[in-house]
Amino acid sequence: MREQEIGALERVRLRITCPDGLGIVASVAQFLATEGANIVQSDQYSLDPSGGQFFMRIVFECAHAASRLEDMRHRFDRIAKTYDMNVQCSLVAQKKRIGIFVTKEDHCLLELLWLWQAGDLDADIAVVVSNHDTLRHCVAPMGIPFVHIPINDKEAAERQQLAVLETHGVHTVVLARYMQIVSPTFVAQYPQQMINIHHSFLPAFVGGNPYRQALDRGVKMIGATAHYVTNVLDEGPIIEQDVQRVTHRDDLEALKRIGKHVERTVLARAVQWHLDDRVLVVGNKTVVFR
Amino acid sequence: MREQEIGALERVRLRITCPDGLGIVASVAQFLATEGANIVQSDQYSLDPSGGQFFMRIVFECAHAASRLEDMRHRFDRIAKTYDMNVQCSLVAQKKRIGIFVTKEDHCLLELLWLWQAGDLDADIAVVVSNHDTLRHCVAPMGIPFVHIPINDKEAAERQQLAVLETHGVHTVVLARYMQIVSPTFVAQYPQQMINIHHSFLPAFVGGNPYRQALDRGVKMIGATAHYVTNVLDEGPIIEQDVQRVTHRDDLEALKRIGKHVERTVLARAVQWHLDDRVLVVGNKTVVFR
Amino acid sequence: MREQEIGALERVRLRITCPDGLGIVASVAQFLATEGANIVQSDQYSLDPSGGQFFMRIVFECAHAASRLEDMRHRFDRIAKTYDMNVQCSLVAQKKRIGIFVTKEDHCLLELLWLWQAGDLDADIAVVVSNHDTLRHCVAPMGIPFVHIPINDKEAAERQQLAVLETHGVHTVVLARYMQIVSPTFVAQYPQQMINIHHSFLPAFVGGNPYRQALDRGVKMIGATAHYVTNVLDEGPIIEQDVQRVTHRDDLEALKRIGKHVERTVLARAVQWHLDDRVLVVGNKTVVFR
Amino acid sequence: MREQEIGALERVRLRITCPDGLGIVASVAQFLATEGANIVQSDQYSLDPSGGQFFMRIVFECAHAASRLEDMRHRFDRIAKTYDMNVQCSLVAQKKRIGIFVTKEDHCLLELLWLWQAGDLDADIAVVVSNHDTLRHCVAPMGIPFVHIPINDKEAAERQQLAVLETHGVHTVVLARYMQIVSPTFVAQYPQQMINIHHSFLPAFVGGNPYRQALDRGVKMIGATAHYVTNVLDEGPIIEQDVQRVTHRDDLEALKRIGKHVERTVLARAVQWHLDDRVLVVGNKTVVFR
Repeated sequence: MREQEIGALERVRLRITCPDGLGIVASVAQFLATEGANIVQSDQYSLDPSGGQFFMRIVFECAHAASRLEDMRHRFDRIAKTYDMNVQCSLVAQKKRIGIFVTKEDHCLLELLWLWQAGDLDADIAVVVSNHDTLRHCVAPMGIPFVHIPINDKEAAERQQLAVLETHGVHTVVLARYMQIVSPTFVAQYPQQMINIHHSFLPAFVGGNPYRQALDRGVKMIGATAHYVTNVLDEGPIIEQDVQRVTHRDDLEALKRIGKHVERTVLARAVQWHLDDRVLVVGNKTVVFR
Repeated sequence: MREQEIGALERVRLRITCPDGLGIVASVAQFLATEGANIVQSDQYSLDPSGGQFFMRIVFECAHAASRLEDMRHRFDRIAKTYDMNVQCSLVAQKKRIGIFVTKEDHCLLELLWLWQAGDLDADIAVVVSNHDTLRHCVAPMGIPFVHIPINDKEAAERQQLAVLETHGVHTVVLARYMQIVSPTFVAQYPQQMINIHHSFLPAFVGGNPYRQALDRGVKMIGATAHYVTNVLDEGPIIEQDVQRVTHRDDLEALKRIGKHVERTVLARAVQWHLDDRVLVVGNKTVVFR
Repeated sequence: MREQEIGALERVRLRITCPDGLGIVASVAQFLATEGANIVQSDQYSLDPSGGQFFMRIVFECAHAASRLEDMRHRFDRIAKTYDMNVQCSLVAQKKRIGIFVTKEDHCLLELLWLWQAGDLDADIAVVVSNHDTLRHCVAPMGIPFVHIPINDKEAAERQQLAVLETHGVHTVVLARYMQIVSPTFVAQYPQQMINIHHSFLPAFVGGNPYRQALDRGVKMIGATAHYVTNVLDEGPIIEQDVQRVTHRDDLEALKRIGKHVERTVLARAVQWHLDDRVLVVGNKTVVFR
Repeated sequence: MREQEIGALERVRLRITCPDGLGIVASVAQFLATEGANIVQSDQYSLDPSGGQFFMRIVFECAHAASRLEDMRHRFDRIAKTYDMNVQCSLVAQKKRIGIFVTKEDHCLLELLWLWQAGDLDADIAVVVSNHDTLRHCVAPMGIPFVHIPINDKEAAERQQLAVLETHGVHTVVLARYMQIVSPTFVAQYPQQMINIHHSFLPAFVGGNPYRQALDRGVKMIGATAHYVTNVLDEGPIIEQDVQRVTHRDDLEALKRIGKHVERTVLARAVQWHLDDRVLVVGNKTVVFR
C-alpha cells in the first residue's frame, strides 16, 4: 500500500524508539485520536516486552497536518518524556532529497533514475556526484545536476563533495557502486542516511572483487547486500539482501552480468524502504517494517 | 518471533474486524493498558481509512489471563459495540485441535506429523480420517487415532466423519491431499476452519490432474495453493502459494515429485499461520499478518 | 558461459530436430571433427529415445567458419537426409536484428535498451515501432529509428508495420507491452520469431487487466510470462515465467509496480535465450537449453 | 527426466574427464553407436575449448548392458588412452549403498528416509550410524540397521565406524547434521563420496553456531550448503546451496526452525544429484549436470 494523500487530509510518518513498557501504544494512539488523526498503518516490534527496546512506525492522516505538525510535536513532548522516547516525524508529502555517488558502472544509477522517472521513487534526486565524468550523459538529459569531482587529494575532494551535498540540500546519500571508501568525517555527516550496495551476500566476500572470490569458491548462488555505511568496511547494518542462482557454466563475466541485476534490485528496494522511513537501526542491525 | 509464555504472564491473541474510524486503536490500547496487559505484537490493516473495513491482530500478555479472560471480554463489550467490532480472542497456551483428512498420498500428512513431533506445529493432532486404510501405519505409532471411513454411501460417510470430528473436539480440518469433494453441509460446519491444499498455482489448473494440465501447457514453474474450503471448488480464499521452477526435461513423474515438495511446504505454512490466528478472511480473500 | 569469438576461430550455433535413433550424435560429432570444428557446448533432449522427437543444440568453433559455412551445410546434407533432420545454423558473430513494438508503457522497452547499451543483448535493435508517439524520447537519443504508426485503419496500419520491419531487415519481433492484438497475417510472417510478454503467470489471468484479476482473486504471488505469439491469444509456447510475492497490503498500483519488475526481467531473459538460439519449439511447448 | 529402465534395454551412466580437444565427442558417440547403444542424455562442459579440462556425462541404453559392461569398458580403453580420459561408468539399475551419520537432530535424516520410502531416492540406505542412541526409533521400524557408536576414544570410535561402513558395503557417506569432525584418515576413505550439510550459506558463517552468527550479523536471508567433505572444515567443493528470507522478528529459535527446512531441502537435492552421478569435482569446485 502506498501512503498517498487522499483528499484534503495530509499524511505523516511517525517513528518511535523507547524502552518497552505498559501503556505506550495506548498513550500514542490516544494522543492521535485526540488530535483527530486517523491511523492508516501501524507496525511495532519489541526486542523484549519486559523493558527491551520497543520500535514503532505509524502513518496517520489528519487535516492540515503540515501547518499543525510543529504544534503537535510540542504537545506530544510530555508523552515522549514519560516513556523516554526517541521520536522522528515527517510529512509524507515532503520528499527527501537524495545525492547519488557513482564511479563508472551505470546499472545501479540507471535503476534509480528509471524508478524516479516512473514515479516509483518517492524522492527528489538532488545531485549525482562522481569521481569520473563517464556517466554524465545518463544524468544531464534529465535535468539533474551532475558534478564531477576527481580524486587527487582525497581530503580536498571530500570537502568538495560535502559542500556539493550541502548546497543541494541532500538528506540521504546513496553509494550506487561508488568504488571509493568514504572517511569517518563523511560518514559522521550522514548517520543512518548513507546507503551502500555491496556486490556479495555479506558477510561472504567482504572487500574487493567479490565476484572473483565467489567464482573461486564455487558458490551456487551470488548475492548483493544494501547496508548503511559505518566506519567499518562492509560491516554496517544490513537493510536488504537477495541472491540469484548460478552454475558452473557461469564465468566471471556471467557472474558480473547476473550480479548487476541483483545489485540494482536490492539497492532499489533498500532506498525505497529508507525513503518511506521503514528502516530503523538497532545496534548493527535493522528493523524493516514492510 | 514465537509467542510463548514468559514467566507467570500468559499470552492472548485478539483479533478485531470493524469499519475503520477514529479512535479504534486508542480505545483498544487504552483498554489493555488499564487491564495491565502489555502489547507484545500488533498488526493492523485497513481497506480504506475512511470507513473501509479495518483488521487488527494483537498479542498481549498479562498475569492470570486464562482465569480473567471471560471477565475481560465482558468489560470489552462496550468498546466492541461502539465500533461495531467482530472480536475473536484465544489463549496462546490453549492449543487448537486439528483433524487431518487423507486418501493415499502421504507427503502432506507426513510433513504435518513431523512438524508436530518437532514441536513446530502449535496444535494437538486430534485425529486422522481417511477413506482408505493405506496410511494407518504413519499415524498409529504416534498414538494419534486413525479412523478409516470407506465411502460407499457419500451422505452416510459424511455423517460418520462429522461425528468423529465432534467426538475428538476438532476445531480445524486440514485436507492433506484428500481427493474427495466435501458437501456444503460439511463446509458449513467449519467456516474458515477447513484448509485444503491444491496442487497448482491457482487460478491456473483448477480441477483434476493439475500436473498433467501443467505439463500439457508447458509452464516453466509449477505451484501449490493452500486455501480455505468453500462451496465452490478451488475458489476459496487463498492463504498461501508458492512455486518451483521446472524445465522441459521434467516429465509427469518429475512434476509430481517436485510438486510434492511445494505442496507440503505451502500447506505447512498455511496451517501454522491459521493456528497462530494470523489469517483473517475478507470476502474471498485473506489478510495474513506474518 | 558466453559464446564469444576467441582468436581467429569463429563460432557457429547448430540446431537439429529429428526423430530419435541410433547414431545421430555420432554422425554429427564425426562430421564436425572431420571439418576440424571443436564442440564448445552441446545440449540434447529426447521426448523418447525410441523414435520420439530429438532436439540438439551445438556450439562449435572452427577457423574461417563464416566463409566456409555454406559449403559445410552442403556437405552436411547427406547426414541431414539420412536422419530426416530439420537443421538451423547461424554464425555467433552475425547479430539478429530485432524490432520492438511498444504502446505507452516504457519499462520493458527500457530494460531491453539498457541491456543492449551494456552489451548484454546480443542483437542489433533495428527499429522501435509504436501506435503512440509517447516513447520516442527514450529511443531517439540512442540513434535507433522510432516509427510512429497510429492505428486508425487496422489493416492499413499492419501493412505499414510489416513494410517498416522489412525495410529494417528485422528477424525477431518483440512485443514489449504492445497492447494490441496482431493479425494472423502478421503472425505468419514471424513464426517462432515474435515474442510477447503477458503480465500474468499464464494460464492464470488470460486477457485484459490481469493485475485487476489477480487482485480480485487474492493471489499471494503475481507473475509474468514471455511466449511466442500464435493466433490464439496468450496461448503460444511459453519461453519463460517468473513470479514475485505480494501481500494483502498491495493494492492495484502496487501490483503494477511490482509486476513491472517481473515483466522486464522475464522478457529480457526470454529475448536473450531466443537470440542465443537456445529456444526450440515443439508443438505448443518449448525446449530451452540454458 | 528420470532415467529408468524401459523394456529390456538397460541404462548406463558414463562420466568422462579429460583435456579438451578435437574429436572427443565424435569418438565417444561413434563408439556407442557401434555398440548399439542409444544416447538418452548427454551433457558436457569445458573450462576452455583449447585444451582446458573437459567434462562429459552420458546416459545411454542398450540391450544386456549389465552383462556386456565389462567387455565394453575393455573395448573403450583405446579411446580413453588416446584422449587421456578419466572414465567412470555405472549401471543405473545398480543402486549405490549409503551410510547416514547423525547425532540428535532428526530433520535431515527424516527427509532422506521419507524420500527413500517414497521411491524418490535412488539408493539403498545401508546403515545409520550415530554417536547417540536418540534417533534409533526413526530408523529401526524401517528395517534399516541403526548402529550406536559412542565417542569416548575418538580413534577407536572411528575404527569402529569404518568397520561398520565396510560391513554394510557403503559407497557414499552422508553427514546429516552429524556434529563431529571426521579425521583425515576417514575422509581419505571416501574421496568425493562424503557429503556434509552445513547450516549456513558458505563461505559466510563457517564453524560453530552459524544461526547465532547470522542473528548477530542481522542478515536478511539464511542458507544452507551441501558440500563434499575434505580435510579443511567447511571448505570442500560445494554441491548445492539455497536460502530463505528472514526478518528482524525471527529470533534464534525461528532461524533454526526456518533453517531446518532449507537444510533438509538442500541436502536432499545434493544427495540425489550425487546418486545420479551428476556431480563432477574439479579442484575445489563442482560441475553439476542437472
